[in-house]
Amino acid sequence: MNKPVAAPLAGRLITVEGIEGVGKSTNLAFVAAELQRAGHEVVLTREPGGTPLGERIRELLLHPEGEIVPMAELLLMFAARAAHLEQVILPALRSGRWVVCDRFTDASHAYQGGGRGIPVPAIQMLDQLVTGGLRPDLSLLLDVPLEVSAERQAGRGDRDRFEREASPFFSRVRARYLELAQAEPERIRVIDAARPLPEVQATIRLALQDILVQ
Amino acid sequence: MNKPVAAPLAGRLITVEGIEGVGKSTNLAFVAAELQRAGHEVVLTREPGGTPLGERIRELLLHPEGEIVPMAELLLMFAARAAHLEQVILPALRSGRWVVCDRFTDASHAYQGGGRGIPVPAIQMLDQLVTGGLRPDLSLLLDVPLEVSAERQAGRGDRDRFEREASPFFSRVRARYLELAQAEPERIRVIDAARPLPEVQATIRLALQDILVQ
Repeated sequence: MNKPVAAPLAGRLITVEGIEGVGKSTNLAFVAAELQRAGHEVVLTREPGGTPLGERIRELLLHPEGEIVPMAELLLMFAARAAHLEQVILPALRSGRWVVCDRFTDASHAYQGGGRGIPVPAIQMLDQLVTGGLRPDLSLLLDVPLEVSAERQAGRGDRDRFEREASPFFSRVRARYLELAQAEPERIRVIDAARPLPEVQATIRLALQDILVQ
Repeated sequence: MNKPVAAPLAGRLITVEGIEGVGKSTNLAFVAAELQRAGHEVVLTREPGGTPLGERIRELLLHPEGEIVPMAELLLMFAARAAHLEQVILPALRSGRWVVCDRFTDASHAYQGGGRGIPVPAIQMLDQLVTGGLRPDLSLLLDVPLEVSAERQAGRGDRDRFEREASPFFSRVRARYLELAQAEPERIRVIDAARPLPEVQATIRLALQDILVQ
């Protein structure tokens, strides 16, 4: 079992969370650039993915041949996370690099917990087993009303299995994300991503300041 | 969370276990034929696999692009099992069919536990989460000394990731299998598969009698 929290980690882990169409890609690049500007070596990565195995699991989840039962989906997410942590995230953090990750364990709670209805204790147990309870130093939750998310996604072409979900699914995912933020307001910062991009990024810059000066 | 043990199951689950080169394929077919001869409708399936998702996970495990960390391997096995149970095994058992499965949870204990060194409680926890602790009605453990297994495998062509493991790995897998059988002698029958096939199959027939007359 991984017990990463036991090891002192020189770098920081920053995650960006949110449903589809909240502007994650643009803002992930912005976060990475801000951290580099502050003098840090940055690893930009994503979940599920980030390793050869993780990318194959991602493909399997987003473009499956048949139905994927919720428990299998959850276990696949954590299988990808186990590889990602051991092969990418922990080595980077140990060597003092900062890791910026597109989604992490909070997404399992939001999507497989809130979205698919898997009970919280099952997810917490897997979290403990796989990450040893590792928490990001900072998580930016990009939040927009569902109508805005749907509108932004409408312009996109091929949709993956998650993007094809109907709005009640995303409504549950968003609600769970907001619950997580309410429970850990210090770690998870809710960013109103419906505003114009310069305002969003000014807020992100402020959130990053807190962790950069620590 | 699956709680399959709560539902009364009309069919029976029979698994065939063992390391590579013990004659699983031949004897799986024999078990299925014997059960059919006794008038049962039989589903012959395998792990990892048995569903479209499971077969893709199998491919990913047997022919990966890079290294697979042990925890990811374990979670992938249970992801395939979750799909297999919900989509194939439980529906068959509920409808009164008998399921003959090439490997099941005992294999996770033997390979990922004994072979890879993952602690028993982690595997038990996943077993509880995914199968609700479902146990086969009968498990046939085909056992041969490592030299015999290695000899039988030598004649084969392309080897998968497990088959390429060195003998200390298989020695640990075999030892764990035998420990499992010792702990549950009623369920897990050790079959000396180094003997000539007719003798092996006579022993299997005897073991099946016990469950056919129940």
